[in-house]
Amino acid sequence: MSIDGPPAKDVHGPEHPQSVGYTRARKTVFHQDGPPFQLAAGGRLAPVEVEYETYGALNPARDNAVFICHALTGDAHAAGWDEAPDGPLKAFRGKKPGWWDDMVGPGKPIDTRRFFVVCANVLGSCYGTTGPMSLNPATGRPYGLAFPVVTVADWAALGFKLLDHLGVDRLHAAVGGSMGGQQALEMALAQPDRVANLIILSAGFRLGAQGLAFNAVARYSIINDSGFKNGDYYGGPGPLAGLSTARMLAHITYLSEESLGHKFGRRLQGKDKPDFTPVGVEFEVESYLQHQAGSFVARYDANSYLYMTRAVDYYDASTWGDGDLTRAAARLKARSLVASFSSDWLYPPELCRELVSAMCRAGRAVTYVDIPSRYGHDAFLVETETVSRLIRGFLRP
Amino acid sequence: MSIDGPPAKDVHGPEHPQSVGYTRARKTVFHQDGPPFQLAAGGRLAPVEVEYETYGALNPARDNAVFICHALTGDAHAAGWDEAPDGPLKAFRGKKPGWWDDMVGPGKPIDTRRFFVVCANVLGSCYGTTGPMSLNPATGRPYGLAFPVVTVADWAALGFKLLDHLGVDRLHAAVGGSMGGQQALEMALAQPDRVANLIILSAGFRLGAQGLAFNAVARYSIINDSGFKNGDYYGGPGPLAGLSTARMLAHITYLSEESLGHKFGRRLQGKDKPDFTPVGVEFEVESYLQHQAGSFVARYDANSYLYMTRAVDYYDASTWGDGDLTRAAARLKARSLVASFSSDWLYPPELCRELVSAMCRAGRAVTYVDIPSRYGHDAFLVETETVSRLIRGFLRP
Repeated sequence: MSIDGPPAKDVHGPEHPQSVGYTRARKTVFHQDGPPFQLAAGGRLAPVEVEYETYGALNPARDNAVFICHALTGDAHAAGWDEAPDGPLKAFRGKKPGWWDDMVGPGKPIDTRRFFVVCANVLGSCYGTTGPMSLNPATGRPYGLAFPVVTVADWAALGFKLLDHLGVDRLHAAVGGSMGGQQALEMALAQPDRVANLIILSAGFRLGAQGLAFNAVARYSIINDSGFKNGDYYGGPGPLAGLSTARMLAHITYLSEESLGHKFGRRLQGKDKPDFTPVGVEFEVESYLQHQAGSFVARYDANSYLYMTRAVDYYDASTWGDGDLTRAAARLKARSLVASFSSDWLYPPELCRELVSAMCRAGRAVTYVDIPSRYGHDAFLVETETVSRLIRGFLRP
Repeated sequence: MSIDGPPAKDVHGPEHPQSVGYTRARKTVFHQDGPPFQLAAGGRLAPVEVEYETYGALNPARDNAVFICHALTGDAHAAGWDEAPDGPLKAFRGKKPGWWDDMVGPGKPIDTRRFFVVCANVLGSCYGTTGPMSLNPATGRPYGLAFPVVTVADWAALGFKLLDHLGVDRLHAAVGGSMGGQQALEMALAQPDRVANLIILSAGFRLGAQGLAFNAVARYSIINDSGFKNGDYYGGPGPLAGLSTARMLAHITYLSEESLGHKFGRRLQGKDKPDFTPVGVEFEVESYLQHQAGSFVARYDANSYLYMTRAVDYYDASTWGDGDLTRAAARLKARSLVASFSSDWLYPPELCRELVSAMCRAGRAVTYVDIPSRYGHDAFLVETETVSRLIRGFLRP
């Protein structure tokens, strides 16, 4: 779910032949007039602005679109270099390419010479699509907690609305990792005729009790920060400490015992002997987490963090079969690829296999791979070579 | 490390023939006069008050003492029912028996008809032994962060000081789980001639990088709570929200994915459908964690939490062999029992086996058991029947 993986990678610039080059986010507004957007959890919202990027071109048959779904704190900027970084939360853009630049570009596994690639920021997030920090037209101030609860179902519905707008009837593929994998799955379940292929990486059909527990602690940490002010903090610094704690905690769950041990072990931070301080930084791993959290709070909105984690909590694909996952899977018409990673303990391989087994029982076409990796949940962003081969092979004409 | 395990147990009262009955904590003061207590990390402290309990009687040969070491947030009240609960942090006492009442009593595995059992609260804690909330004689106010950093080595040294005071030269056994297992190990390493038998449950010879990371987040959460006031919060409520977050987080690490799944799954808290709220409680597991944290903050001092977790961070038994664990283990003269639990991910079985392997390589007498359990780190307090059989067998004359 974090967009930066442990090992440093070769990053190429916008001039590289395999880069989509400079990109510019686009926006479209739905429900400006007429009835509001009806949310699955009961709320209503109008207008609904969606920020998205596209790479490559839609072919005349309009059958080459690939919809990419981002993870918890991701955005629409999946590939290339942002031409126009704007807004305080987007300051990190431009400094590095889109979060899935490894996978998307001319000649890359999701080949923009062949595909028309669309990536949209989800509802409730803070990167251009309407969310808690957007202005509430009823008050002229940011929504804060007045923002309605959003669900993965809403993201799927809004994704299709955007595809309608772009003239895409049927997706060649819906693709996503982690939370994005759940959105891709939801799109294939909600409108089976509109998704020909489905790629799900590092994602379960729902979160387990331990994942719910970690999300609960993260939210608790934000909500109980004195800077939270019941979500109405936009004039001040906001719950920065609470959001930092939440991010540090979440970051641990994206890695693994093995990768942390391998990368940091028990090494001290820039010294041979501890300072023996109850409150300072002693170990490298402490310093790393604080650094990560520091850059995170500068680029993410705490209210969005609450709404995003809640949406992940609520998601359970088996509800399409009234609790029976096989019945849910029977809805699918997509040919599917599911990949788990051996050291992922947020969506462990066993959980991924439950979905795959249900697909098999329902007689659906599915390829499943459990990839040996020490990089934990983040492996889908880190194991570039393996994931590249996998996606390239699956999307081969 | 939590003192309450998942499944409800049969608890018997103080009148039961296998109970040590009503107990009363005792205190003794060291370093009232003369030179101060020299701490391993460099600090000095005087006076040093130690709260402890004893059960059973020291035999004339003075060779039947068993020293029990408590876990992170435990205390000296290992068995029986406290006769005199006192102080705000001890209010929870009296309502339930000592934290290891299952193991200690007449006819129980650590049989008080046979053994003289001693359990002392560790330095830096908040249950009677000198710690950050104790009055600093230099200022007449609580130490707060002026309290010196304590280490497991200090606990071992102070344990022996208490044993001197009680007239015990050599322990029949040092016993502990989790952090207590580290203290027991440290006692056997620091003064090998004084520990005949050693029992270590759910403890590693040091904490791994992931454990360091979780402790760091917990401390960060406390320190960045606006109520923390650099540790000088004793006139006010203190960093209650930060300490709650720390405890909720730690609590997850004491359980396991499987036990959380088994106990709570994704069940909603007292309702059939979610309320769809970004900030309220939806799932049982959220409610459980908040409840646990609520009772914890009423009974534990945030500064102590910082010092205790730091001591655990710093501990590394291999320093006795200059980083070579086998050389360290060669110091041991105790006959040892080490038990890990299959689902413990804070001190995973592989980590426990590193110590056992080092003991074997050093030619030391060690029995090792990896106990299949779904209860995670807390299993040493939960798997009563198995642990009873194990300890009973190991201590058999």
